[in-house]
Amino acid sequence: MRYQEMTIEGRNAVTEALRSGRPIDRLFIQDHCQDGPVLTIRRLARAKDIPVKYVEKERLDQLSETGHHQGVIAYAAAYEYAQVEELLEAARKKKEPPFLVLLDGIEDPHNLGAIIRTANLAGAHGVIIPKDRAAGLTATVARTSAGALNYTPVARVTNLTKTMKELKKQGLWFVCADMGGTPMYDLDLKGPIGLVIGNEGEGVGRLVKETCDLTASIPMKGDIDSLNASVAAGVLAYEIVRQRLGK
Amino acid sequence: MRYQEMTIEGRNAVTEALRSGRPIDRLFIQDHCQDGPVLTIRRLARAKDIPVKYVEKERLDQLSETGHHQGVIAYAAAYEYAQVEELLEAARKKKEPPFLVLLDGIEDPHNLGAIIRTANLAGAHGVIIPKDRAAGLTATVARTSAGALNYTPVARVTNLTKTMKELKKQGLWFVCADMGGTPMYDLDLKGPIGLVIGNEGEGVGRLVKETCDLTASIPMKGDIDSLNASVAAGVLAYEIVRQRLGK
Repeated sequence: MRYQEMTIEGRNAVTEALRSGRPIDRLFIQDHCQDGPVLTIRRLARAKDIPVKYVEKERLDQLSETGHHQGVIAYAAAYEYAQVEELLEAARKKKEPPFLVLLDGIEDPHNLGAIIRTANLAGAHGVIIPKDRAAGLTATVARTSAGALNYTPVARVTNLTKTMKELKKQGLWFVCADMGGTPMYDLDLKGPIGLVIGNEGEGVGRLVKETCDLTASIPMKGDIDSLNASVAAGVLAYEIVRQRLGK
Repeated sequence: MRYQEMTIEGRNAVTEALRSGRPIDRLFIQDHCQDGPVLTIRRLARAKDIPVKYVEKERLDQLSETGHHQGVIAYAAAYEYAQVEELLEAARKKKEPPFLVLLDGIEDPHNLGAIIRTANLAGAHGVIIPKDRAAGLTATVARTSAGALNYTPVARVTNLTKTMKELKKQGLWFVCADMGGTPMYDLDLKGPIGLVIGNEGEGVGRLVKETCDLTASIPMKGDIDSLNASVAAGVLAYEIVRQRLGK
């Protein structure tokens, strides 16, 4: 099990966790608690944009594992990132050409979770995310991934283009999603491939785009600009599945 | 413009709106407000599971349109639903075989918004949702649809199977997504079609499934059960697009 959700209970432990910058996913605070330590926790949570839910004492008693929550319980995530090499190893083990999904700055944890879920079901061997300006693996991501996080390895790298260049030496081709690209049906996506999905608002960054071998577009018939990032990832991943199945 | 977001301001107006069961999307309450009327509003909001954000007075002053928020502002949605006939009319105007998306109980407003966005870009002529046990058109749905709600008509019907039977008389075929179905690549999805997407947890209901002409499955190579509902809708809608393009 790569992934574990855990609770942090009690005022000191939660304050400490918030101050240390540890990724906290949600915070439960007892209704009508207004004393100093709780106000400090609320202030820290607000500064870090952590969702707070105010609940009755009985609910906290249910959630508590230690029995000593003192009116506050935080949910934190503990996850072990994979190495890029392990992703390739997973493909070798299945005797399949590597199929990786690279995310250039996905910020919404719901999108990240849905993409990991899609990667699992489309038969991708893993997901690569950058360290900076991107959602990491939180409890929300784990929940939205519907369990996929326990099966599909996720590697986190410092520099996405550097990783792509290294993977190219191992035979991978990279295709990114972009409106100006070739219609996806007209590209050959059957070989060892890395599918690159851009940020929700800005798409794929310039350097990453320049490092890609192919640019694929999804046909757009409508009045608005672009699909939701996790839907676009799903449509492209399944075009790869279709081509690999020879349909 | 079919859609408008509006604010409801002040304690009485917000309490009234909550009591009347009017769809409220989000609630902003001034920090440290603990008096009776505000506690009533908090209790009503909790009972209806409406997200509450506690903010400084300055933030409320910014959000306020009337200048008299008294510490509470609610966001509500106002949207005009379309008639099913208008959806068919949209297809006739474009001289295309009708392509509708029917949602059998999508509960998550983010999924609903993403599906309306996908419907718009895949060239569907409209979306049909049921009145009961399903997300309606709230401000969250409008935001997640990225503007598509202003272009893609959404009809709300009392009985989904009854509507399907009426549409069949007008020549539509219905295909639902289900794991046990025929691989989607092996079905002919080019004619007048209604794509039926089921509820997030339980899939398509029995009666609706029995009313469908075809059952399509998305190939699943992974370890978990199913795709996110909006991703599945996207993959299937784009299979219809591919077949219609003759690719």
